[in-house]
Amino acid sequence: MKIIRDISGASIKRSVDSGTEEQRRAVQGIIASVKQNGDSAVREYTERFDGIHLENYKVSEREIEEAFSALDPEMVSIIEEAADNIRAFHEQQKRSSWFTTDEDGTMLGQKLTPLDSVGVYVPGGTAAYPSSVLMNVLPAKVAGVKRITMVSPPGKDGTLSPGVLVAAKVAGVEEIFKVGGAQAVAALAYGTESISPVDKITGPGNIYVALAKREVFGDVDIDMIAGPSEIVILADGNQRADEIAADLLSQAEHDALASSVLVTNSSALAEEVSVEVERQLATLPREEIARQSIIDYGAIYVTRDLEEGIELVNELAAEHLEILTDKPFETMAKIRHAGAIFLGRYSSEPVGDYFAGPNHVLPTNGTARFSSPLNVDEFMKKTSVISYSETALKKNYEKIAKLARLEGLEAHARAVEIRFDKK
Amino acid sequence: MKIIRDISGASIKRSVDSGTEEQRRAVQGIIASVKQNGDSAVREYTERFDGIHLENYKVSEREIEEAFSALDPEMVSIIEEAADNIRAFHEQQKRSSWFTTDEDGTMLGQKLTPLDSVGVYVPGGTAAYPSSVLMNVLPAKVAGVKRITMVSPPGKDGTLSPGVLVAAKVAGVEEIFKVGGAQAVAALAYGTESISPVDKITGPGNIYVALAKREVFGDVDIDMIAGPSEIVILADGNQRADEIAADLLSQAEHDALASSVLVTNSSALAEEVSVEVERQLATLPREEIARQSIIDYGAIYVTRDLEEGIELVNELAAEHLEILTDKPFETMAKIRHAGAIFLGRYSSEPVGDYFAGPNHVLPTNGTARFSSPLNVDEFMKKTSVISYSETALKKNYEKIAKLARLEGLEAHARAVEIRFDKK
Repeated sequence: MKIIRDISGASIKRSVDSGTEEQRRAVQGIIASVKQNGDSAVREYTERFDGIHLENYKVSEREIEEAFSALDPEMVSIIEEAADNIRAFHEQQKRSSWFTTDEDGTMLGQKLTPLDSVGVYVPGGTAAYPSSVLMNVLPAKVAGVKRITMVSPPGKDGTLSPGVLVAAKVAGVEEIFKVGGAQAVAALAYGTESISPVDKITGPGNIYVALAKREVFGDVDIDMIAGPSEIVILADGNQRADEIAADLLSQAEHDALASSVLVTNSSALAEEVSVEVERQLATLPREEIARQSIIDYGAIYVTRDLEEGIELVNELAAEHLEILTDKPFETMAKIRHAGAIFLGRYSSEPVGDYFAGPNHVLPTNGTARFSSPLNVDEFMKKTSVISYSETALKKNYEKIAKLARLEGLEAHARAVEIRFDKK
Repeated sequence: MKIIRDISGASIKRSVDSGTEEQRRAVQGIIASVKQNGDSAVREYTERFDGIHLENYKVSEREIEEAFSALDPEMVSIIEEAADNIRAFHEQQKRSSWFTTDEDGTMLGQKLTPLDSVGVYVPGGTAAYPSSVLMNVLPAKVAGVKRITMVSPPGKDGTLSPGVLVAAKVAGVEEIFKVGGAQAVAALAYGTESISPVDKITGPGNIYVALAKREVFGDVDIDMIAGPSEIVILADGNQRADEIAADLLSQAEHDALASSVLVTNSSALAEEVSVEVERQLATLPREEIARQSIIDYGAIYVTRDLEEGIELVNELAAEHLEILTDKPFETMAKIRHAGAIFLGRYSSEPVGDYFAGPNHVLPTNGTARFSSPLNVDEFMKKTSVISYSETALKKNYEKIAKLARLEGLEAHARAVEIRFDKK
């Protein structure tokens, strides 16, 4: 793993696929067709892209029961425990409507309402992750969303993975459809005979799914469009190279485009980690992917001191940040930009990916500068509430009318004046 | 104003300009040029589009002093009072970081951090609204954003409107630049010699500004892209037609594309309001705009009863909703979708546009189904925090490893196992 001692141009090397013009046109065609022909278009695309004809593509109760039988009962209970942890963390995020009152009778407030319906996209194949189901569904559930519809592309045998189905059931999804790609996003956004349209679509997917989400955005809401995963580890010289290497590799195995970066003020640790990464790579089942990722997007930056490391970490604005220093809490106080922060050697990133409770859907590609992990707020909307009394309006209407006329909006001024028969 | 008694196909007629391919290409060209040539490109576009050459386009302290002199001192104090109200309401929205702890030493939390910097776009000409400055700047200020940069296109004489400059100063903007259009958005997103880049861009603008915001989205955050303004008034038979007509017209005068809709269960009120709208239109300075808006986008829907009216209001998901019923609070409890709700006859919409405190930047075009008024949360980001103790990880690492292996991610499993020398 390359060690870089001049950090002046340091960055996380990022590769975001924003699609080709051809892909964009293909996606637009699929959306138009699903919008017009509903289920028949969905069936046609499923046959073409997933290689299976499904007359009825809704998952049945029996299929869910079979998924539970297919899974080790211990695994089911681990999924349930992870779900409990995720639910508990997200419950803390939930807020209530509030109101303030004034002695003149004015009441102002903010009303919170869950979205009516949400669609969750779950990728198929080897990226069919039960954890992704829990992380996308549970915040919506905690928010109070009544209808959560899940979609996922079927395998060639017309099934979904048991882990995904069990996680969906545990999370409380009621409707699951075996459909993927841009056609699934279109069905969620505009509805078909089988699928009722939703207000917001979340969940990861390939470039066609990402482009389709961009296309339907505005007609429905979407979550962020995620780029490849990233980790930055900030470590001083007193940390274990083998543990750091293992954490870097857990990111690298995701994707050849994933970025794993170590920032340290210890030149010795830098050397050790570089050797450890090589040693551990050799025995990984996904060695090829992880090696490519480390070669193309991995880096070890050696800084003058810890303070310079902290500055660099803020510039990188990583999705995942592990802080391995003597006083990780004190270090954390200086971090302004990161999706999730993991403190100390027992907070290895997979703890957060699967189990601890905070969401693993995190801002990538430097967007931690301005965006947040998936959270309950994103499944509720605010409505402002204004109730003025006669006394309150009488006291203020002339000022309001003056402001309106300053902006050249006479009808605004008259609307408040007419309450007191002044025009 | 047309009265419609069959509400089966009722809708808010909405016209959203999403731009032409030619406009999109023009905007892409401007952005590329500003990115490459910085200030010199900004000066060139300002000369071309605003008809003025500005060597130094930053607003000076002297210009701000002049703006204060140009404005009636009473007006300045009204702007200050409005700012105080807006600040007080948004202070209620501000949240703190929080943490939970567990007896096994686990600490989980959510850290809140204001964005580093925000850019606010303020339109020029007759749409240079001081209220818009306050509504966009103050939530960012309350959130704790340190650097707020304002941009606005200069008039042909190279100045900005005094009202806008005074509002900016009152709201606490420190840097103001006389630049508008796509070139201003590009300068905020990517920086020039004069303007430092920001993390988020908010504020309304014409189609070129809207397209530019869409283009830079991802590199920076943006607020929503607003469509024409809308009001829905829900009224029973005991309400005053003249007040309702005045409120409908205060919306209609904004824009020929604005929508003003009355929903009532009283056929008599419907007739009265229709007549009143016609009567009041005749004396409005912006009669032509308001009349066009009422003809093209206005409607009075007569429902069977109040319940049917409430259902219709939820389908319409309006930006502004006035509730004029006997028990407006009880009616409000049944409303799921609206940007802002105004209760009772003394809460005319302009009260909220200018003065009461809640934000006037609201979701248009039906997006109140899933989005919210501009608020303090949008200027802060969340970071998840995970701190596991040795005890906590020891208790759980085998479960985490099992979940990782279920997903085929061996390096994830090893990362937690290596903490206990198991691989």
